[in-house]
Amino acid sequence: MSLPVLEARACAAAGQSGLMALYEAMFTQYSTCTAQVLVTNLDFHDDDKRQNLNSTLQELLRMNIVPIINTNDAVVPPPEPNSDLQGVISIKDNDSLAARLAVEMKADLLIALSDVEGLYDSPPGTDDAKFIDIFYPGDQQSIIYGTKSRVGLGGMEAKGGTSVVIANGTHPKVTGHVITDIVEGKKVGTFFSEIKPAGPTVEQQTEMARNTGRTLAALHPDQRSEIICHLADLLTERKEEILAANKMDMDLAANAGHLPPAMLNRLSLSPAKLNSLAIGLRQIAVAAQDSVGRVLRRTRVAHNLELEQITVPIGVLLVIFEARPDCLPQVSALAIASGNALLLKGGKEAANTNRVLHQLTQEALSMHGVTEAVQLVSTREEVEDLCRLDKMIDLIIPRGSSQLVRDIQRAAKGIPVLGHSEGICHVYVDADAAIDKVIKIVRDSKCDYPAACNAMETLLIHRDILRTPLFDQIIDMLRTERVKIHAGPRFASYLTFSPSEAKSLRIEYGDLECCMEVVDSMQEAVDHIHKYGSSHTDVIITENEDTAEQFLQQLDSACVFWNASSRFADGYRFGLGAEVGISTARIHARGPVGLEGLLTTKWVLRGDGHTAADFSEHGTMKYLHENLPVGQPLPGQRDSN
Amino acid sequence: MSLPVLEARACAAAGQSGLMALYEAMFTQYSTCTAQVLVTNLDFHDDDKRQNLNSTLQELLRMNIVPIINTNDAVVPPPEPNSDLQGVISIKDNDSLAARLAVEMKADLLIALSDVEGLYDSPPGTDDAKFIDIFYPGDQQSIIYGTKSRVGLGGMEAKGGTSVVIANGTHPKVTGHVITDIVEGKKVGTFFSEIKPAGPTVEQQTEMARNTGRTLAALHPDQRSEIICHLADLLTERKEEILAANKMDMDLAANAGHLPPAMLNRLSLSPAKLNSLAIGLRQIAVAAQDSVGRVLRRTRVAHNLELEQITVPIGVLLVIFEARPDCLPQVSALAIASGNALLLKGGKEAANTNRVLHQLTQEALSMHGVTEAVQLVSTREEVEDLCRLDKMIDLIIPRGSSQLVRDIQRAAKGIPVLGHSEGICHVYVDADAAIDKVIKIVRDSKCDYPAACNAMETLLIHRDILRTPLFDQIIDMLRTERVKIHAGPRFASYLTFSPSEAKSLRIEYGDLECCMEVVDSMQEAVDHIHKYGSSHTDVIITENEDTAEQFLQQLDSACVFWNASSRFADGYRFGLGAEVGISTARIHARGPVGLEGLLTTKWVLRGDGHTAADFSEHGTMKYLHENLPVGQPLPGQRDSN
Repeated sequence: MSLPVLEARACAAAGQSGLMALYEAMFTQYSTCTAQVLVTNLDFHDDDKRQNLNSTLQELLRMNIVPIINTNDAVVPPPEPNSDLQGVISIKDNDSLAARLAVEMKADLLIALSDVEGLYDSPPGTDDAKFIDIFYPGDQQSIIYGTKSRVGLGGMEAKGGTSVVIANGTHPKVTGHVITDIVEGKKVGTFFSEIKPAGPTVEQQTEMARNTGRTLAALHPDQRSEIICHLADLLTERKEEILAANKMDMDLAANAGHLPPAMLNRLSLSPAKLNSLAIGLRQIAVAAQDSVGRVLRRTRVAHNLELEQITVPIGVLLVIFEARPDCLPQVSALAIASGNALLLKGGKEAANTNRVLHQLTQEALSMHGVTEAVQLVSTREEVEDLCRLDKMIDLIIPRGSSQLVRDIQRAAKGIPVLGHSEGICHVYVDADAAIDKVIKIVRDSKCDYPAACNAMETLLIHRDILRTPLFDQIIDMLRTERVKIHAGPRFASYLTFSPSEAKSLRIEYGDLECCMEVVDSMQEAVDHIHKYGSSHTDVIITENEDTAEQFLQQLDSACVFWNASSRFADGYRFGLGAEVGISTARIHARGPVGLEGLLTTKWVLRGDGHTAADFSEHGTMKYLHENLPVGQPLPGQRDSN
Repeated sequence: MSLPVLEARACAAAGQSGLMALYEAMFTQYSTCTAQVLVTNLDFHDDDKRQNLNSTLQELLRMNIVPIINTNDAVVPPPEPNSDLQGVISIKDNDSLAARLAVEMKADLLIALSDVEGLYDSPPGTDDAKFIDIFYPGDQQSIIYGTKSRVGLGGMEAKGGTSVVIANGTHPKVTGHVITDIVEGKKVGTFFSEIKPAGPTVEQQTEMARNTGRTLAALHPDQRSEIICHLADLLTERKEEILAANKMDMDLAANAGHLPPAMLNRLSLSPAKLNSLAIGLRQIAVAAQDSVGRVLRRTRVAHNLELEQITVPIGVLLVIFEARPDCLPQVSALAIASGNALLLKGGKEAANTNRVLHQLTQEALSMHGVTEAVQLVSTREEVEDLCRLDKMIDLIIPRGSSQLVRDIQRAAKGIPVLGHSEGICHVYVDADAAIDKVIKIVRDSKCDYPAACNAMETLLIHRDILRTPLFDQIIDMLRTERVKIHAGPRFASYLTFSPSEAKSLRIEYGDLECCMEVVDSMQEAVDHIHKYGSSHTDVIITENEDTAEQFLQQLDSACVFWNASSRFADGYRFGLGAEVGISTARIHARGPVGLEGLLTTKWVLRGDGHTAADFSEHGTMKYLHENLPVGQPLPGQRDSN
């Protein structure tokens, strides 16, 4: 069946009225009037026509009427066949019309929506094609336009002060948002810019970090230790420089006046803080001696075929931290110790301090030629944009509030996130609890540092304790410590006059507040924690060993404690040395995470021409699978042999 | 400032014309005409009016005109104040009008779009609120309608054969798709159904699995072993039952005629297959003795304060597998051995076999009262719907093609996925390679099982080998084995007559095909693999130990081999016993994964009233952090002391 040949211009003219009706109806929803303007490219060659068009459009805009401008298809010459060939940019009428108009009207921004994401540096889909976020016309020679490029570039050189963005207008997930996203400055499509920024893009930074990271991983452990020790030295030797930068940040924050005192306190550095930071770094330098390349398992698979499982760095880490600048050298040292490349993104409040601390880190790294292994990402980069680099970043570690962690977990598409999202920790006071331990542990769990994720949020008490002297003592202690109590529904029902009822049994107060609830038994306490807890840290206080062991065994949390404060859930207190963070994830690392949380493993097999076929039914070889000594002890086992 | 009081009906009437213009313009885009119909609830009380309305609407539909029906606001009584109170369902005019019309017109489906997701069993946002996918009006008493419920339910009891779906029409990510999604039967919003299905929902299954899984995890390792051994017995004792079900599946597949022979082969079971399956299960039963509750680390934190890190199950696993029904008992045994709850989703081709195998698994589980720990999910459930259960499922393990794995990685929102996504494995033939080893290893890596993920896809050869007898021998061997060669760009440039050029250097052929490329050095081979490989398994063949060790050290893949076939990358061949799969992820588990890939850890701290304050500057205690013997040896270290 042959279709009738349609004349393109006639078709376009026929569609025009329906299109205008749609525009008008849509804009009516926003109480905005529209006007139809039809022009041709030829109109621009005539100065009078151009001026008329210009004043008409200006007048429409002045009246808050949105002009819908289109090619006057009926009067233009017939379109040429599509000349979209390799190496040739096709210039479509609409694109060049838009560009001419934008320049003529001195528009601030021209947004060209099509069905492609934007520009790539080679034909999309080929091995090396990379998307271009920001395009500088001066770079044009580096671009190869492929047969798949359907976006015209007529006049899109961002001339005359008009910026240009080419983006996909058909993507179902962004349609309706793409224009507002672009206007808000989000990274959507390709932005044509006249000004080339001095620094590298975040993609280039990530690539540099990954490449240099491989060299870092190949250094001798002693060399990684040396870098960390050198950084520790620089923190004290160059403290004036650091403190001067910190003062700038502090002054800016004070002038802006929006930071609460606790935040200012975390932002500020002092010679004492730098000293203790340096001491911490030297501890990490020691741990660095025995992290990468540790043999975890060694197996003789067959004669002359030996397998080793060894620790290796994860790859490229992205660490996002808030106002605390002391995070920067600490996290850098952890990454260096574990041979990982690192992208750092700090809060903008600490921008000056972070810049100096990062310079010192790179200075230390330069002693073994791995300067670029740690990169500081511009504070303008948004977390969502960094999370787009899912093929280049292997692990994200947020260090900060649980709100930050939750935001990042939501934004991280496919990139694993290591971090606690919530710490709804429970202390369960059993019927057989000793009074002195209850008072000590409950006080410490709630009051030692109420904002910590390992602080108690819910106090569960056995029913038998109600109306006993122990109960009164607990309440008295909490009152003395000014802890505000919220009653769980059962607890409230037992009291004549109860405190205000808890809005939910799943609240992380993070302050001198807690929920109190009554349970009938240890089993009910376990069920309550499974239902409302966050599997972070939960405590039982009892003198009954059987009850305690049942609780420790049954409860499915990262940390389960018997007669000890929840505040012990901490890498340093656990004796893990440097702490990466506390993870509530169920895979990779759980609970307080030491340096090994930044390591993965690789399998090394050394043979002598072995093939799988050698071991087949008719083959000549047999599997031995003999465990061999690993040579080096595992961490935590040094004294065990 | 007080706003003028607007009369609601006047406002509604004023908006009507704009709304209709929008509808008309939108439908015009699909070349569809619309008609405006205004009615009131009172029109339904008059039989004549009702019949007139009915025939008008039928006639419009017959003419392919879409009626847009609305309340004739101008003539209805003034609206009552919103009576949306706890326990009371508010009936909005539009909702009840839609319901009446749907029944009157005998509509197949009524879709009510609003700004809420659908129905919850308690007020949304409260501790226990659960979303209801399918609502049976008979269950109505179990629903608590809260103040936040803004969806009317007037007449929405799915009566008269009209099905009803309430869904969110404002969600940016689904707008434009929500109607087609509902019509395609996807799980969007709440579906009101008259028929209550016999089985539990997948949410209920997951909850049962999690709860029973906790009991399974608390069993003695011997008991978990017994269950697995019993299942192994059942596989041979009840083979007639299994094979009869399998014959049904085979017959159905043969009749449908759409399964390729390789697939049919994987679908079919035999007494021999069941026997070897039973043998494998007994091996897993042995491994189960030493998986859960193993002490990995023991530390004396302080006097009377002892810390243990022990292995525990991950929680709830979701395993998705394709046509192979033998996967079911194998995966079940792995989950039971590691104390994990399990949701199984098998291919629909094996539905009958899977049902019988699952019954036998539950029969084995029942011996220790944990029947519900392993659940078979209906084949109708879509993977995307299962991935919505992100708060209830801890790990997804796809077992099947890399396409399946990729699909699931895309669908899994926030749930970790354990599985290889691609195996683009390289063999690099160094200048110092021994000819016999090259021929043996290259043949085995490519030809032993070309569809495996650990088969060679790219052969890299050192430039010095070109035009040597070794080169000719490699080509001859590949020709004899009928391996189709695709030339990389450099390789092609060296040859007068080259094979067809490879479309990309990043292809997993999975067949008797491979890419061949030339490199200048071992270093260039490493760079090539980093750029184009998938970090699965890569091999160097050389007699030069220095070159080999450099390659093994520098290359960042899960498995790096020297003079051994890539086919050794396999849990059984590595001596890990039961294999969970091969992971190309960089965290948790990497490379071939044994039972320990299904375990996580928990920290158990036993104290005597210890608090963090005891260790403060003015406290009475000091951290010891003394490593203690772990009691049980770690796997792979049995013979090392």
